[in-house]
Amino acid sequence: MSIAVNFERLKSDLEELRRIGLADDGGIYRQAFSESDILAREWLKAKLSEAGLIASSDGAANVFGRITKPDDSPCILIGSHLDSVPCGGNLDGGLGVLVALESLRCIKENNIETKHPIEMVAFSDEEGRFGGPLGSLALSGEITPEDLVNAVDLYGNYLKDEMALHGFDVNDILHARRNQGMIKAYLELHIEQGPVLDKEKLNVGIVEGITGLRKWNIRLIGNADHAGTTPMKMRTDAFSGLAEFAGEIPRIIEEHGSDESVATIGKVDLFPGMANTVPGQVEFSLDMRDIDNKILDELSDACRRALSAIARRRMLMFEFDIISEIDPVRCSKDIIDVIQDTAESMDIMYRNINSGAVHDAQIISRIAPVGMIFVPSKDGRSHSPAEWTYWEDMEIGANLYLQSLLKMADS
Amino acid sequence: MSIAVNFERLKSDLEELRRIGLADDGGIYRQAFSESDILAREWLKAKLSEAGLIASSDGAANVFGRITKPDDSPCILIGSHLDSVPCGGNLDGGLGVLVALESLRCIKENNIETKHPIEMVAFSDEEGRFGGPLGSLALSGEITPEDLVNAVDLYGNYLKDEMALHGFDVNDILHARRNQGMIKAYLELHIEQGPVLDKEKLNVGIVEGITGLRKWNIRLIGNADHAGTTPMKMRTDAFSGLAEFAGEIPRIIEEHGSDESVATIGKVDLFPGMANTVPGQVEFSLDMRDIDNKILDELSDACRRALSAIARRRMLMFEFDIISEIDPVRCSKDIIDVIQDTAESMDIMYRNINSGAVHDAQIISRIAPVGMIFVPSKDGRSHSPAEWTYWEDMEIGANLYLQSLLKMADS
Repeated sequence: MSIAVNFERLKSDLEELRRIGLADDGGIYRQAFSESDILAREWLKAKLSEAGLIASSDGAANVFGRITKPDDSPCILIGSHLDSVPCGGNLDGGLGVLVALESLRCIKENNIETKHPIEMVAFSDEEGRFGGPLGSLALSGEITPEDLVNAVDLYGNYLKDEMALHGFDVNDILHARRNQGMIKAYLELHIEQGPVLDKEKLNVGIVEGITGLRKWNIRLIGNADHAGTTPMKMRTDAFSGLAEFAGEIPRIIEEHGSDESVATIGKVDLFPGMANTVPGQVEFSLDMRDIDNKILDELSDACRRALSAIARRRMLMFEFDIISEIDPVRCSKDIIDVIQDTAESMDIMYRNINSGAVHDAQIISRIAPVGMIFVPSKDGRSHSPAEWTYWEDMEIGANLYLQSLLKMADS
Repeated sequence: MSIAVNFERLKSDLEELRRIGLADDGGIYRQAFSESDILAREWLKAKLSEAGLIASSDGAANVFGRITKPDDSPCILIGSHLDSVPCGGNLDGGLGVLVALESLRCIKENNIETKHPIEMVAFSDEEGRFGGPLGSLALSGEITPEDLVNAVDLYGNYLKDEMALHGFDVNDILHARRNQGMIKAYLELHIEQGPVLDKEKLNVGIVEGITGLRKWNIRLIGNADHAGTTPMKMRTDAFSGLAEFAGEIPRIIEEHGSDESVATIGKVDLFPGMANTVPGQVEFSLDMRDIDNKILDELSDACRRALSAIARRRMLMFEFDIISEIDPVRCSKDIIDVIQDTAESMDIMYRNINSGAVHDAQIISRIAPVGMIFVPSKDGRSHSPAEWTYWEDMEIGANLYLQSLLKMADS
């Protein structure tokens, strides 16, 4: 007997969730520990209870659901997150949580007993309002008391105060850690948040890895001179240096990168930033990603060499700060194989893909093998009300997830 | 008999003026119609009276000084301005006014009678706090009642209110117009505000022309995508388009410009301007200057073509607004000849030069032939407390100015 998700029920859950934090601009405002985020968690707990599942939460305000009472045996953890960026979409995180909920319900309704218990989770603050994916970091035991005291959002609101507002004690986050070995595997379904599956008209992507990241803040410093009175040859124009570097990025990726490499200059500030003044200083971000740490090293070296050469030739000063370095993560080969075999047996149009975005799975990989299924994002849009996935692909993705989960839970 | 300026007296005047509007950061804050600007004008009037000269002012608050009472004969007008940018230097404008004052005093003390009367002026708001060089525009009759009502500074202060604070009626500006023919010639000494004379170790520059300006505001529009999940080939990165264009500017100037051509990108805004997002839109300034209107046309055309081609190839939208178009001005050939002959007879190290900055002379050229003498700016610095000219060059410039003026007033 092959079971399948009740897709009408999943759609109806998605619609109920969408109304929590929905604003007039069509965007979802479910930032971590906001009123609507708390409402969404309460709503999920009610849904779990309604389905006869056991709802609970931990010190990090992560919400859990199980068919059977927790015991000492390692579980298969499934889930995603309910929080959103400001003016985000409903599917980023939300779809993964609701597919996990629907899977648990199906398994219970069909009285299927699995070798390993299955536990679902809605992680807290995946979007990193307070700096990082809080819920999954807490489970991995990567949070210190110092982090908790200092965690603050962009507007100066402290995590400890925002949690206290809703009756949580920030120090309880330290109790959320799961012991090594207690999670046998982690499975997450997520929207791609990129254009690849949509462009290639595929139903799902099976994630092989999550790219690592090197983020720099770079300054080139010359002289701010009068744009009218300073001849071209007497200028040390910091922006010209940046423009030359930006022009070299394609060459640097061709020579030192892989097909997966991306590099982005997304933030640029000129000083003094006036039309009639040669820009004496420019400060800009460089975001480099690849699935291979060695390639990231080579890209970083090549960018540094290019910037040094440009600065030397143009008489500019070159400085940079490393803002973040996140190592790439490989998904579990075993889990990939299970999903791939399942997809083939179901005649699903899929491809293997890497994730360029950060996910809870990346953090959980530190304590357990992880797997991820992507469904397409129309035009690659995400973090926006324009975020969408065709119903058909959602349903195919959910069923692939359910079947893969059953295999994982029995292996 | 050859007379010369009393340079110690000029230095002492400069020091007195410097104390008006001097702040703790070493900068001069003598913005038009501020307290210190009004104080500087009062100080100048007192200096004129002290020297037995006739001080007056007009509806635009321009301050005038003469040896003889005004009559119907056309005058030789000399001068510059006393107002500064915020945190500016003391020489930008101030030196030209004080050299004019010193010249008038010398001529009076030596009882020299000239064929044409000489009148000195300190123009109001050359730095354009309220939009343009107010005093010289008023003399040229280029101000309308509508301009007066709307004139406002960057902080929302209206010209009419700022003038009223000091007892002026904004409508009197319309009475400041001088009839065509009433100014026989205009002579101005100014610091170069650029690095050319200083680099070439010359004492003065004889200005041949003041460059024209084309200022554009340009937008390139693509898509703002996730910097991690969007492969390089699927991006329409607006900043890459700008970087490519910036890289083409040297070629465009080589192919379509002159040795005098400059083009500057001084202001750049990226949207959304986040490190982890491909910039979907960039808005930037383009400031093009040359001494020849035809070359400015060709530069503009070449920039437009380059931007169109880049936008087409990169699938970006390209839009631009013209922010200002100021025609170049040629200084009077006769005045240049007088100054040049005088410089040669005085063994002064000079070169002919164009001005890349706007000056009152540019406006007065609409109603009279104009001439300008530049003295070097150390390292090209201006609009800054770092502004400086060696005493030696100031003295040489002031004497060249005095001797040239005497010839102009007798021709």
